[in-house]
Amino acid sequence: MAKLKGNLLYGQSGGPTSVINASAYGVIKEAMEQHEYVDEVIVMKHGILGALNEDFIFVKDLAKKDIELLKHTPGSAFGSVRHKLPDFREDDTSYLRLLYIFRKYNIRYFLYNGGNDSMDTCSKIADYMRQIDYEIYIIGIPKTIDNDLPFTDHTPGYGSAAKFIANTMMEISYDMLAYPNGKVTIVEIMGRHAGWLTAASAIASESGYGPDLIYLPEVPFSIDRFKKEVAEIYNKKKQCLVAVSEGIMNEEGIFISSSSGLKDAFGHFQLGGVASKLATTVSSDLGIPSRSVEFGSTQRAASHVQSLTDVNEAISVGSHAVKAAIHKRSDLMVVMHRASNEPYTIDYKLHPLADCANTEKRMPKAMINSKGNGITKQYLDYVLPLIQGENLPVYKDGIQQFSTIRSLF
Amino acid sequence: MAKLKGNLLYGQSGGPTSVINASAYGVIKEAMEQHEYVDEVIVMKHGILGALNEDFIFVKDLAKKDIELLKHTPGSAFGSVRHKLPDFREDDTSYLRLLYIFRKYNIRYFLYNGGNDSMDTCSKIADYMRQIDYEIYIIGIPKTIDNDLPFTDHTPGYGSAAKFIANTMMEISYDMLAYPNGKVTIVEIMGRHAGWLTAASAIASESGYGPDLIYLPEVPFSIDRFKKEVAEIYNKKKQCLVAVSEGIMNEEGIFISSSSGLKDAFGHFQLGGVASKLATTVSSDLGIPSRSVEFGSTQRAASHVQSLTDVNEAISVGSHAVKAAIHKRSDLMVVMHRASNEPYTIDYKLHPLADCANTEKRMPKAMINSKGNGITKQYLDYVLPLIQGENLPVYKDGIQQFSTIRSLF
Repeated sequence: MAKLKGNLLYGQSGGPTSVINASAYGVIKEAMEQHEYVDEVIVMKHGILGALNEDFIFVKDLAKKDIELLKHTPGSAFGSVRHKLPDFREDDTSYLRLLYIFRKYNIRYFLYNGGNDSMDTCSKIADYMRQIDYEIYIIGIPKTIDNDLPFTDHTPGYGSAAKFIANTMMEISYDMLAYPNGKVTIVEIMGRHAGWLTAASAIASESGYGPDLIYLPEVPFSIDRFKKEVAEIYNKKKQCLVAVSEGIMNEEGIFISSSSGLKDAFGHFQLGGVASKLATTVSSDLGIPSRSVEFGSTQRAASHVQSLTDVNEAISVGSHAVKAAIHKRSDLMVVMHRASNEPYTIDYKLHPLADCANTEKRMPKAMINSKGNGITKQYLDYVLPLIQGENLPVYKDGIQQFSTIRSLF
Repeated sequence: MAKLKGNLLYGQSGGPTSVINASAYGVIKEAMEQHEYVDEVIVMKHGILGALNEDFIFVKDLAKKDIELLKHTPGSAFGSVRHKLPDFREDDTSYLRLLYIFRKYNIRYFLYNGGNDSMDTCSKIADYMRQIDYEIYIIGIPKTIDNDLPFTDHTPGYGSAAKFIANTMMEISYDMLAYPNGKVTIVEIMGRHAGWLTAASAIASESGYGPDLIYLPEVPFSIDRFKKEVAEIYNKKKQCLVAVSEGIMNEEGIFISSSSGLKDAFGHFQLGGVASKLATTVSSDLGIPSRSVEFGSTQRAASHVQSLTDVNEAISVGSHAVKAAIHKRSDLMVVMHRASNEPYTIDYKLHPLADCANTEKRMPKAMINSKGNGITKQYLDYVLPLIQGENLPVYKDGIQQFSTIRSLF
């Protein structure tokens, strides 16, 4: 197989995770070592939008310290985007523009770091470039705190978010125990269609400070059952800690919290406020003092509580993507296969992009308890390896040090 | 001065901080070394309620590991309470009960760890015991994340909360920068009457990722001015990060957020929801996408981001309280005096309890900018020493280890 030498283009897309920049680190480190294949590593600003706008960061211009700090920087250091490409058979404007840019910069390797929507983008570009016969190798790098990508044991970003949620839940639980007559505390956790993040709150129970009830989007939500279950626990313990997914739906499949009626660029409903709604219900209908907590964007941005396992895996999926591309693999996403749970061992493999796009992996029934208000040991066995080890923040003068790449924007 | 030997009673009261248990550690360690004065260290469960109910934990029964872990345990490990004692001249029932308990257990040293309301409790007990001539030495140990106790440079608990707020604000800010067209993000921070906690968000600006606007309860809040200031920044940057105190009031002194109309045991209004109200205003009146974040109880419970300076000071106020009591000082609260800022040096002193009760220290004008929407360098010089150093959590299998004292409840 003849070697192909050219430039590598990398971009970030979709919602940030606290370790997506660790994947960028993995890509950059690996690509810079592959001199025989890669001339230059170029990064799109704001994902595919940067490619369309010819708005790039050249890795050779970055300070070494800023590259190292990617392992500790939350958010999308290179900018992200939610931009849906049309079907090129209907409108090829964007694709022609991309082809022009790829030729101009001799882009031969294209790595895109994102969730299901991003894999859709990736897959469409791969299809187009194959069809017009431009030689380029396209690999998707998974990331999402939601853990809802199929064909991979889990996704980089999930372990750190799970670790933040578990540890913060413990703190809220311990804090809640302060008073003899407590409240019902309802914590809202991200996860539009899958309960993986909300389930992570159960890890806190390993220490004795977990939620009493967990409501996942996989189980149809009944307000009446919820009130009954909360009242039962509160009457016994004078406290009740509830973890609830933002994405819970009633039996008819209507979000409990889609009050705003607003949709995002991908046509998804904007969620939020379900905990506050349920707290109001508890106070008014049950007459029990109640309050709500929303973790909000901190659960995907908490660089100060990172799982070292997650960070290392995020780096690995990045470097594996580079290796796959230079070996002329394409239209594939890097996936993780759990070869063994004890000892926890991950094999990195590749799976067709088209399969990964626009499908969501929900929690299997075997991980949800029979009452539909908690999780099983099978889930704990699955999740615990993912939160092991700490990637301690780099503090200076009491605050974290982040990569200063943003100053190039 | 004849030595007095007896038992020492310690309790926690008011809202938890992430380091109140470090003060308990300081009390216990110091008291156990003072064999000539202290026979036994006894802790009230749920503060003064434990004394009234004769519900105690005897420190000699605690495992060494549980005492050590107090330095890493959030919440009130021994239980807290909000219980207002009546004026003993009007109703001495509780005081007679306390006297009975103090005599029964030979309590000669009474240390109470709390905020302004707790110092009121402490002061009343001291008054009563002096009046009926029961020999007991009563010392208040300050704590509050709000930093609103007078006569002390700052309070234990504030430094860690400030560190959590600053670091989380940086993360939210970095996360927010991901998209090219951002939102107005409004973060609600605790602080009923004083802006100390909200001001701490400005520390994040030291790294370049701080809030654009800061609204404190010390400055009357105008919705019109707020809208103008937000629009100005958003139009320039396409992003705007706002830190707002839960306790902001309009020109007439009415809380922007006292929608529930509910008061707590001390007659204070329950606040919350101001960020969500302001986000709705921005979306509807300005037509700019906006979202709100509430830190909620995590800001006082985040044991995973503790300032080592704060933890060490919390331990010191505890040990100083013991030393003061055994040296027959009474009706006093331990206060911190900043002898020097460079190097940062704290002297521990004592101040009459009665002065400290029910008064609140607000931010001085010199720490607030002239526009009333930010802070000055004087505040940063004041706060930065308080967040220095990290008291790293004790992780085991990916989650924090807390003291298991709660299992005795």
